[in-house]
Amino acid sequence: MASEKPIVAVTCTAPVNIAVIKYWGKRDEELILPINSSLSVTLHQDQLKTTTTAAISKDFAEDRIWLNGQEEDVGQPRLQACLREIRRLARKRRSSGDEDPLPLSVSYKVHVASVNNFPTAAGLASSAAGYACLAYALARVYGVESDLSEVARRGSGSACRSLHGGFVEWQMGERADGKDSVARQVAPELHWPELRVLILVVSAEKKLMGSTVGMQTSVETSPLLRFRAKAVVPARMAEMTRCIKERDFQGFGQLTMKDSNQFHATCLDTFPPISYLSDTSRRIIHLVHRFNAHHGQTKVAYTFDAGPNAVIFTLDNTVAEFVAALRHSFPPESNGDKFLKGLPVRPAPLSDELKAALGMDPTPGGVKYIIATQVGPGPQILDDPHAHLLGPDGLPKPAV
Amino acid sequence: MASEKPIVAVTCTAPVNIAVIKYWGKRDEELILPINSSLSVTLHQDQLKTTTTAAISKDFAEDRIWLNGQEEDVGQPRLQACLREIRRLARKRRSSGDEDPLPLSVSYKVHVASVNNFPTAAGLASSAAGYACLAYALARVYGVESDLSEVARRGSGSACRSLHGGFVEWQMGERADGKDSVARQVAPELHWPELRVLILVVSAEKKLMGSTVGMQTSVETSPLLRFRAKAVVPARMAEMTRCIKERDFQGFGQLTMKDSNQFHATCLDTFPPISYLSDTSRRIIHLVHRFNAHHGQTKVAYTFDAGPNAVIFTLDNTVAEFVAALRHSFPPESNGDKFLKGLPVRPAPLSDELKAALGMDPTPGGVKYIIATQVGPGPQILDDPHAHLLGPDGLPKPAV
Repeated sequence: MASEKPIVAVTCTAPVNIAVIKYWGKRDEELILPINSSLSVTLHQDQLKTTTTAAISKDFAEDRIWLNGQEEDVGQPRLQACLREIRRLARKRRSSGDEDPLPLSVSYKVHVASVNNFPTAAGLASSAAGYACLAYALARVYGVESDLSEVARRGSGSACRSLHGGFVEWQMGERADGKDSVARQVAPELHWPELRVLILVVSAEKKLMGSTVGMQTSVETSPLLRFRAKAVVPARMAEMTRCIKERDFQGFGQLTMKDSNQFHATCLDTFPPISYLSDTSRRIIHLVHRFNAHHGQTKVAYTFDAGPNAVIFTLDNTVAEFVAALRHSFPPESNGDKFLKGLPVRPAPLSDELKAALGMDPTPGGVKYIIATQVGPGPQILDDPHAHLLGPDGLPKPAV
Repeated sequence: MASEKPIVAVTCTAPVNIAVIKYWGKRDEELILPINSSLSVTLHQDQLKTTTTAAISKDFAEDRIWLNGQEEDVGQPRLQACLREIRRLARKRRSSGDEDPLPLSVSYKVHVASVNNFPTAAGLASSAAGYACLAYALARVYGVESDLSEVARRGSGSACRSLHGGFVEWQMGERADGKDSVARQVAPELHWPELRVLILVVSAEKKLMGSTVGMQTSVETSPLLRFRAKAVVPARMAEMTRCIKERDFQGFGQLTMKDSNQFHATCLDTFPPISYLSDTSRRIIHLVHRFNAHHGQTKVAYTFDAGPNAVIFTLDNTVAEFVAALRHSFPPESNGDKFLKGLPVRPAPLSDELKAALGMDPTPGGVKYIIATQVGPGPQILDDPHAHLLGPDGLPKPAV
């Protein structure tokens, strides 16, 4: 028979974040320290989240992890770095005399199960939400209360930005040990309630270069990337922070687009060149500029990460018209009813003037579907024990 | 009856040039002074050339110009700048006491007729060959013997590089009046006889932004362009010169590709972004890198100007195999017999290993045709009076 409280389990959720000042390039591959600061918007977990359960028990023989129901190799270096770091923080806390009330030991092995509520095909940086959620869950289960930036960062650099809601900066820091390379909130979740986010999932045409290898090659070969990190990003961080604080959508949108373009420019300056944007991505860029030109102001902005999917920022009063423009330019193929997911968007007419201003031949099926969402909070703890992804035996519950 | 020698006519030809260190951005729009030096390869006129006749007569009432048989507005500013500059040089020569033997006056009006032997669709910078040819013909007819860089440059910046054969640098110069912004030969036409050039004409998918407006927008909005011009290009000019002098194809090819990529990166960093590369361009880039990777060395290099067409540099011993790879990746649609123009290329087999290494789904018709050419000489004077494009009446001869 199992003893009382044979395992302690914690279940958390964590959000996806989208950078508006991009992170590309590490100055330390082992510690995952970036060559420049970055700034992101945390997306709402109602639409996109990772859920992770971490459980520890003296009866567990080894650390184990299951991702989306499949057991994965727990020995992979980044996962090991996270586990090592959280245990270091846990020991530090105990040795500092702040004794943990639970009869648990840092030496207990952990079981972790994690699922995403969004398809990998969405091309979103699931590793950011995943490692943020892991760090958060491990911290709770091992009783760590200090800053988790380093734990999450060691898993995936941008994961530290998913530790907070709202608008988040990852300060690059200066120290060689990375202790000052931390994420902090620039503005909270409810600061800019009108802001809306549309994720445009486009057809992936080819296998893309992973971002880890890609940014490594860029750091080694692109003179423009080094200049960007040193001479361009610092002023952009300050300017982006101002735009967010003042809710200046014109400035926010333009700088978001410029920084996305500059990131992709440094990819093209990499040798051999890296090209993450597809022709559909370029059509979306064109559409956004035409839409804004028609309105005589920046009403919509795009940003692209290491893949062809676009993330669109706009305000609530523009969502309906822009989605109508997207439907016009990228007519849904077979899934008209599933074209729009997430927050409801009311149908809106498209004026003939705007249609003419867009001036593009429609590309049917170019955008597979849209996820409408908004700014959201940081990681959450789920109190309901039914939410645990691991059963009392420490193994994944069967999928319902 | 017309008096003796009523008109004096000169007919010249001039070559196209392809930059391997790119010119993008002016520091003076009026004088056409660049923000960085550039370096180009002059292509052979057997395949690509402009032919221009300039004729002067005291009987001409006004300056007139015909391009490809159509009369054009002689009042356009760049043409006027060329005419003004050549007449200034002609007056300067006379005033310096070096009296012209011909009974002609600088005040005589000029008629100009010019034709290209290559289609505009080839997307080649016909203005470079055109203005070089114009400057050369005007100089002969007005008896000017000084450096023609400024005359050609005032028409189209890169035209000054078409004034010489072989390998040519356009030194940006430092003076505000542009007197030291001149083209000079780095190595002569026959310096590197093994070098071959393939022009890949691809389907233009959309209207492109002209290079004049494009580079103006880039100078105004791209921080990366300013850095490139100041901090990257000077070392690249020196390195490219060394590669050419030493006939180091590895170095030449890699730097050519890097500089093309960096130019297009600065276009993407422009706001709104400029995109000259099409998906077919990107497929060609990919093909070249795969081809080189298969061979374990840089045997082929690409460069792209302000359009989707690729210019390929390779050596004579690689042309046949690379053309076979192109035929495999871009199967000719209906014009199989007209796919290859210019220098003959013998058919070559494509090994299964190379086919597998290319790893691309074929894109039928992606490349419309190929012009095979090589390094060539600078402008030439045609002595045969039958070559004149203008008749004794000073008007274009009917097309034969």
